[in-house]
Amino acid sequence: MSEALGEAALLDLASRALARAGMAPAEAAQAARVLVLAELAGLTTHGISRVGQYLDRVRLGGIDARAVPQVTRVMPALAMVDGRNGIGPLVGMAGLEAAMAGARDCGIGAAFARGSNHFGPILPYALIAAEQGFATLIASNATTTIAPWGGKDTRLGNNPLGIGVPNPGGDPVILDMALSVAARAKIRDLAASGAPLPEGWATDAQGQPTTDAKAALAGFLLPVGGHKGYGLAVMVDLLAGLLSGAAFLSHVQAWDKNPEAAQNLGHVFIAIDATKLASAETLAARMADFIGILHDTPAADPARPVMLPGERELAMLRRQRAEGVRVKPAELDRLRALAGN
Amino acid sequence: MSEALGEAALLDLASRALARAGMAPAEAAQAARVLVLAELAGLTTHGISRVGQYLDRVRLGGIDARAVPQVTRVMPALAMVDGRNGIGPLVGMAGLEAAMAGARDCGIGAAFARGSNHFGPILPYALIAAEQGFATLIASNATTTIAPWGGKDTRLGNNPLGIGVPNPGGDPVILDMALSVAARAKIRDLAASGAPLPEGWATDAQGQPTTDAKAALAGFLLPVGGHKGYGLAVMVDLLAGLLSGAAFLSHVQAWDKNPEAAQNLGHVFIAIDATKLASAETLAARMADFIGILHDTPAADPARPVMLPGERELAMLRRQRAEGVRVKPAELDRLRALAGN
Repeated sequence: MSEALGEAALLDLASRALARAGMAPAEAAQAARVLVLAELAGLTTHGISRVGQYLDRVRLGGIDARAVPQVTRVMPALAMVDGRNGIGPLVGMAGLEAAMAGARDCGIGAAFARGSNHFGPILPYALIAAEQGFATLIASNATTTIAPWGGKDTRLGNNPLGIGVPNPGGDPVILDMALSVAARAKIRDLAASGAPLPEGWATDAQGQPTTDAKAALAGFLLPVGGHKGYGLAVMVDLLAGLLSGAAFLSHVQAWDKNPEAAQNLGHVFIAIDATKLASAETLAARMADFIGILHDTPAADPARPVMLPGERELAMLRRQRAEGVRVKPAELDRLRALAGN
Repeated sequence: MSEALGEAALLDLASRALARAGMAPAEAAQAARVLVLAELAGLTTHGISRVGQYLDRVRLGGIDARAVPQVTRVMPALAMVDGRNGIGPLVGMAGLEAAMAGARDCGIGAAFARGSNHFGPILPYALIAAEQGFATLIASNATTTIAPWGGKDTRLGNNPLGIGVPNPGGDPVILDMALSVAARAKIRDLAASGAPLPEGWATDAQGQPTTDAKAALAGFLLPVGGHKGYGLAVMVDLLAGLLSGAAFLSHVQAWDKNPEAAQNLGHVFIAIDATKLASAETLAARMADFIGILHDTPAADPARPVMLPGERELAMLRRQRAEGVRVKPAELDRLRALAGN
């Protein structure tokens, strides 16, 4: 591991790398903020390593780093965002801001974004909104890696879905999950190491369950809870992809197979002004009660107490904000090179 | 099975049964509509059999059949509903109408309901909204039957979550799911028949996995996808229970153990005016494309083609609307007695 870097230093590096590729400085900083928050929360597969990956696609013409998302409010609390094939987290932040603007005026607001790319993990968006008093529901479609339930062809993305609730008395509660049993990145790691997969994670290309990680990479991910996870993945694509005017299902271009093609991903952002539902005092007291009831549950394994969604990540975020974050040397070197250091 | 009953006849019976217990006729008809739609869609555990169950609790003082929900718009698109411990589907319809009213004015609307009771399944609400052009996200908390992930005490409900997307060219797509692997009603059926449970459905009272249905009834349900289903159930309770001002987690009274106590359940309704996102022609064409891609997926078992969420239920609803519905004779007799026939 390299030396510990502060949040501001990491943000500066990531912003400069993005700006050097053509983004305006203010927009580069917005996009960098999402990835740096992910890195601080320990979501390293969706953190600053994505800067280089996004810029690879910019070089190939797959993403337009100079694109500025266009936001249209079609109703007082409803916005459509055309990402114009820009950097994903910039489109994501435009969507989040538009949803929060609607919620400020009307109590709840939504933004449907099309023409986007990989927008990072959901946790940073939900956190930024929670710090301003908003509960959120956020989702995106994704490159197809899942077969419809009962089918044997990948036609559905491992679509991420997140829900956040603010807590004036402490960390918010944030769920950020994808709808497969396991992430494709984990299967890639196991394939690289030659280790077998646990059962129930994936099938091979013929739709047969497999524990061979390489066969699984050629096959598809299994959804969490069988038909229930399938159903949720379908609904996320209908909201984030179909209603937003983006590509959906097999129309989505795979960033790894066709990095030079525009993906036209879609996202949905819903923000609710929780300050209009309860006073900060009431909300803090009810959240403390809620969290306490779950924490006080007798644990099956006393060494592993019951936790809230996002609790581990938000605790790591607080710690790494205070102590700095240690980025893998190779990744830090790459980021510094991209930033022109 | 008894003779086939038309939708109107069943609605009349259920409405009269509810009105006879004290509901105003217009409100009885609203609540009955939810349960009759559920019955027609084949959701018989959440259909007209609930009329008698709700009225049992009315007799015990657990539900106030005369209560009229009070709706307060706290912002142009945000309403709070005090159900005043009324019949659940009446509170539910008040919440749905308030969310749709907000969406008509602002593009998206939400209602948070407290002081409620079991509100039936989500599919009827999502269907009523979809027929008027609204996409919906609807959820409720519930009596605690699930242990937090890693815990060994029931502190979380098997909270239902539904998402609906309208389709001007055919049936909408509606997901209506609870967050356990299997419904408690199925375990009750297996316990009654003496059959064992499949593995992974439930644990006994000590938190140990069990295939003994009777032991499972004394224990708790396992969430779908382990920590992911647990996380979703937590977030649903935060939205539907905590933010609405209702009871949450173990504060929710069990309708089966304490039928005479007010449950103070909470629901959340979010409605999005999809007509503002795309024209009916565009939306119908995109839905047909989306549904076609999934239907055309090669099936693992050719006898079981890939289906969309809610497809089976909505097809049954259309058929039973045309042909009438056959209700179990005992249930029909009970409903007729309650209606004063």
